[in-house]
Amino acid sequence: MNFASDNTTGASPEIIDAITAANDGQTMPYGNDDYTAKVGDRIRDIFETDAEVFLVATGSAANALALSTMTSSYGAVLCHWLSHIYEDECGAPEFYSGGAKLIPLDGDGAKIDPVKLKKYAGRGVGDVHMVQPMATSITQITEMGTVYSADEVGAISEICKTHDLKLHMDGARFANGLTQLECSPAEITWKAGVDVLSFGASKNGALTSEAVVFFDKSMAREFEFRRKRGGHLFSKMRLLSCQMEAYLTDDLWLKNAGHANAMGQRLKRGLTGIPGIDFPTANNANMLFPHMSRALIDALHADGFKFYDDRWGDDIVRLVTAFNTPESDVDAFIEAARRHAG
Amino acid sequence: MNFASDNTTGASPEIIDAITAANDGQTMPYGNDDYTAKVGDRIRDIFETDAEVFLVATGSAANALALSTMTSSYGAVLCHWLSHIYEDECGAPEFYSGGAKLIPLDGDGAKIDPVKLKKYAGRGVGDVHMVQPMATSITQITEMGTVYSADEVGAISEICKTHDLKLHMDGARFANGLTQLECSPAEITWKAGVDVLSFGASKNGALTSEAVVFFDKSMAREFEFRRKRGGHLFSKMRLLSCQMEAYLTDDLWLKNAGHANAMGQRLKRGLTGIPGIDFPTANNANMLFPHMSRALIDALHADGFKFYDDRWGDDIVRLVTAFNTPESDVDAFIEAARRHAG
Amino acid sequence: MNFASDNTTGASPEIIDAITAANDGQTMPYGNDDYTAKVGDRIRDIFETDAEVFLVATGSAANALALSTMTSSYGAVLCHWLSHIYEDECGAPEFYSGGAKLIPLDGDGAKIDPVKLKKYAGRGVGDVHMVQPMATSITQITEMGTVYSADEVGAISEICKTHDLKLHMDGARFANGLTQLECSPAEITWKAGVDVLSFGASKNGALTSEAVVFFDKSMAREFEFRRKRGGHLFSKMRLLSCQMEAYLTDDLWLKNAGHANAMGQRLKRGLTGIPGIDFPTANNANMLFPHMSRALIDALHADGFKFYDDRWGDDIVRLVTAFNTPESDVDAFIEAARRHAG
Amino acid sequence: MNFASDNTTGASPEIIDAITAANDGQTMPYGNDDYTAKVGDRIRDIFETDAEVFLVATGSAANALALSTMTSSYGAVLCHWLSHIYEDECGAPEFYSGGAKLIPLDGDGAKIDPVKLKKYAGRGVGDVHMVQPMATSITQITEMGTVYSADEVGAISEICKTHDLKLHMDGARFANGLTQLECSPAEITWKAGVDVLSFGASKNGALTSEAVVFFDKSMAREFEFRRKRGGHLFSKMRLLSCQMEAYLTDDLWLKNAGHANAMGQRLKRGLTGIPGIDFPTANNANMLFPHMSRALIDALHADGFKFYDDRWGDDIVRLVTAFNTPESDVDAFIEAARRHAG
Repeated sequence: MNFASDNTTGASPEIIDAITAANDGQTMPYGNDDYTAKVGDRIRDIFETDAEVFLVATGSAANALALSTMTSSYGAVLCHWLSHIYEDECGAPEFYSGGAKLIPLDGDGAKIDPVKLKKYAGRGVGDVHMVQPMATSITQITEMGTVYSADEVGAISEICKTHDLKLHMDGARFANGLTQLECSPAEITWKAGVDVLSFGASKNGALTSEAVVFFDKSMAREFEFRRKRGGHLFSKMRLLSCQMEAYLTDDLWLKNAGHANAMGQRLKRGLTGIPGIDFPTANNANMLFPHMSRALIDALHADGFKFYDDRWGDDIVRLVTAFNTPESDVDAFIEAARRHAG
Repeated sequence: MNFASDNTTGASPEIIDAITAANDGQTMPYGNDDYTAKVGDRIRDIFETDAEVFLVATGSAANALALSTMTSSYGAVLCHWLSHIYEDECGAPEFYSGGAKLIPLDGDGAKIDPVKLKKYAGRGVGDVHMVQPMATSITQITEMGTVYSADEVGAISEICKTHDLKLHMDGARFANGLTQLECSPAEITWKAGVDVLSFGASKNGALTSEAVVFFDKSMAREFEFRRKRGGHLFSKMRLLSCQMEAYLTDDLWLKNAGHANAMGQRLKRGLTGIPGIDFPTANNANMLFPHMSRALIDALHADGFKFYDDRWGDDIVRLVTAFNTPESDVDAFIEAARRHAG
Repeated sequence: MNFASDNTTGASPEIIDAITAANDGQTMPYGNDDYTAKVGDRIRDIFETDAEVFLVATGSAANALALSTMTSSYGAVLCHWLSHIYEDECGAPEFYSGGAKLIPLDGDGAKIDPVKLKKYAGRGVGDVHMVQPMATSITQITEMGTVYSADEVGAISEICKTHDLKLHMDGARFANGLTQLECSPAEITWKAGVDVLSFGASKNGALTSEAVVFFDKSMAREFEFRRKRGGHLFSKMRLLSCQMEAYLTDDLWLKNAGHANAMGQRLKRGLTGIPGIDFPTANNANMLFPHMSRALIDALHADGFKFYDDRWGDDIVRLVTAFNTPESDVDAFIEAARRHAG
Repeated sequence: MNFASDNTTGASPEIIDAITAANDGQTMPYGNDDYTAKVGDRIRDIFETDAEVFLVATGSAANALALSTMTSSYGAVLCHWLSHIYEDECGAPEFYSGGAKLIPLDGDGAKIDPVKLKKYAGRGVGDVHMVQPMATSITQITEMGTVYSADEVGAISEICKTHDLKLHMDGARFANGLTQLECSPAEITWKAGVDVLSFGASKNGALTSEAVVFFDKSMAREFEFRRKRGGHLFSKMRLLSCQMEAYLTDDLWLKNAGHANAMGQRLKRGLTGIPGIDFPTANNANMLFPHMSRALIDALHADGFKFYDDRWGDDIVRLVTAFNTPESDVDAFIEAARRHAG
């Protein structure tokens, strides 16, 4: 019973079937195949716009490669202190950009505070002594499980536009956010001002497939060279594209995210009110960050429940539900928590 | 009927089965799983030594990451003009090393001429104006389909040792070389002086799985950080490790390479003696570089045979056989060539 | 009457005389000359230890090159939000280190708060997802004109040692700090745990000469290659070394700093008590950061006094005195401030 | 009596006088001073065009920074095997460009063979596996002392334009070339197709001052940020600009180069015909590369003449004359060579 992350599971059966099916026959390598062409069209359909689409295998590659086309080496990328790009990629954005500076900002629930963004967005522009703000990156859903509304994305985009910054969205869990919001993929991305989206699938039912979606096509020009140079151009690209294709077929991606979110909310409801558990942060999707007593954490770990408790301080734990988390696991967790707390 | 490359095919059925099987259940992410632990042991067994083993998804990532641990940014890597790292990776080694210089050397059949190597191995050492030679990289089998014998590797290693250079082997087609030689994996690698091996599987029956094998474990220290920083650490690592595991089980890797080589040699025998075809370069494994008349090239292309003819000049074509090239395809090619030449 | 910075002046006459004298005759280039050998010895004498010494022309080069030998590309350098390396070098440390991350910390008066340092010094060590803390950099005197005591440096060094971090001191205004403290150059550097010092002269009487002093000689190995690779190895090196030599002769460096500090303190005494002026930050050397009313700032600017007022917020201005600031300029400033305030 | 290089001397007296004069008074730092503005105008006058001009202190910085604005990190720079940027800058261009590849070409007398250039200029364009040719760099005068005529530069420029490559000229010894040619500065640079010039002064009478001249101003945009980021923006910039100003006043630069070249030619005439000395390469300016017997080399070294003999193979030596080489030194060398050969 694993609530550690949504990457501890395998893939949806549909994804595995797609890999098996795509294995037959000969195709030209390096993305010059029908699977890859088709998945690009599919994503353009879903987002209702003529975007450029590229596939890579990991979220860190998607983010770092995307950002490397959005900033010069002497640029700055504004992001949240808790963002994956700042905290969890061992400096991949700095590496791919040739040493751009990620400037960490505050904000509740891992969402960038627009006031802070405004302060840094125009800071030092034209001053040769200072790195030049060139891009902002937000995460949807955030690393704390919160969701940016279309209005919130729009407000951030306004600031970016005023200061000529590009806007990147790290959508490693994009489907989880979309499921929570009442809006279309287009409305929460390019219509709200997002220029480039890292569109993740690996955490939501695929094995390893992420798309980088350039709504601003001017920035796509360099991507292919940078992807190859980064060792991220797969010879047997159909392995990535067939996963993404299956992911987007028959709303698998939305069904998977819907289940994960439902399990997250079920877990939250079940834990709410148990003595010794409270939720200092509002969380909306498939990641919860409750506060628990140390004794309770230890007891749940002893029961065999896997989850992280060592990073958010003050006995805050992280509980993540996935596309295939069984309802029974959720209920077992709630029941155990109630028992230990009782 | 595709002789363009050994990456135009899918994977061996055993590999697909392994992916399907590995999909079940929960494992800890990022390589902290049993599949990955097991594949490391398997590779240590095969190479009969206590190497450090890391998995990545592409050959360019394997080479560039390996080399980035073998040279400083102000270092030089000696390689052949025709090597994949020099020609075909869009500068990935320069990128990962922070701008080290790849110094291109001559040599027949894409094998480094030891005389040239000797000249550059000690050049400029200690001279602050010059990049410092730090590593040599050879390819087994080479980009021209030739094979380094253990003695030849040993001779290159001697020069490297004399000048304190590390020795890297790009083994994207390592199995094809091994099949051709009468020696063990250990004899053609660390016993001959190789420090780090890029051990490829993707071109020989896997979809996407390459191992970096550190015989010199002192250089492995940095690899894990560099891999993550490059976006090459897979959350669902078992996808890579299960492929490699299946690849090494029941000698699948050797059987696959044996077939590819046999088809290559069958093709060579069949083409030899046909008027208008000659073999200016000796080729030993699954890649042939015959010279053909332009008319013959055009006629074969018109027949639907796929192969590259635009890169080696002077109507030299490249014919590659793969682990699953049907004998009938080979025979059809020979028959067509004979017919057009007749 | 310029209080904008200590780099708006020329050099001490002794420095100019040294350049003129050093111009005669032939010497071998690139630092293989007697001037350079001698200045190394001089610095070793002053610091009473067998350090390695290298000269460069700018403070940014000194800092960035020094740090590039103290961190890997996947490392982190802990520093203050207001530090020159974080704010004012357009990302030079990130560039020279291949994309290491500078993690900005808080602390009063631009001095790193040891509590914050402790929190980050061991954070993420061994975790492949996170950049690895490798160095700390402090500035003496700080960018706010405050001074680290030997005990304070020692306390920071203790934390660094505990976590295996190297300690760098940006001493662009080192002489101003030393003059303020009752300790020897050795006591405030290597005896307090500093591994590498950027020892500045350009702001205190030289035109362009900075030394990088490696107390930890193990890190000096790479410096020469990195300096050349950065374009910072001067063919006519004697230009840099003769300035440094003159700077250190007959205590010129201490006299210059003593004068700058005396003028700074005279200015502070004179301004203290004038209505509308207060000193929210304690400043100890040649840089003051008083708060003034906007009307007073404007009036002083209108009088022709040059100083910056646009960066520290809330009508905080910066007043810098230099090695050759005339007492009469200081008194004129005080008199004008008093008049406008009256 | 030093024929090792033109950087073993000090500066022309006029340069020293200029430094002394520029030392007085206060100026705003970082190039925001009248000296720097004036020297830009002066260079625009000399080149008869509205170029952007930036000053740095070393030739390696000038070249590497210039090239970093002319190529992407995934680009290639075509140059000669013997060029300073390929051989003598410890990889500075690779460093500043973020790992671009310098592709070394052949050609007599260190001049790029246009046939070779043509072959590589369009190679791999649009092929994502290959670095993309983006710039060509030629040296005037070359590292072998030869001179490109305006027609030769024009022929190279034609190839560059056809393939959309930018053209850089490393003019560390530009004045020595110009003196040899019957053309204007404009004719041998932008009128012949040069986009960016490294305009050297340090080897021809200055101490340390080099200009980067952007005839193609579109590429100048990034330069200032890259210069600061590289640690090459001097606070007391007047030190560099006053040298350049004096260098260009009253034709000092042309007089200095004229003398150096005259001494070079005097030396050549004197050595020609001496048994055991021959000139396998034509050299036109102030650098000679005669072949001598080992005995003669040793004898001249024993006499105290300084020159390099260890790099061009086969007992080829390099003899360099400078702006202030006395005629008597030249005659003494000739006399000694004649005596030993006799």
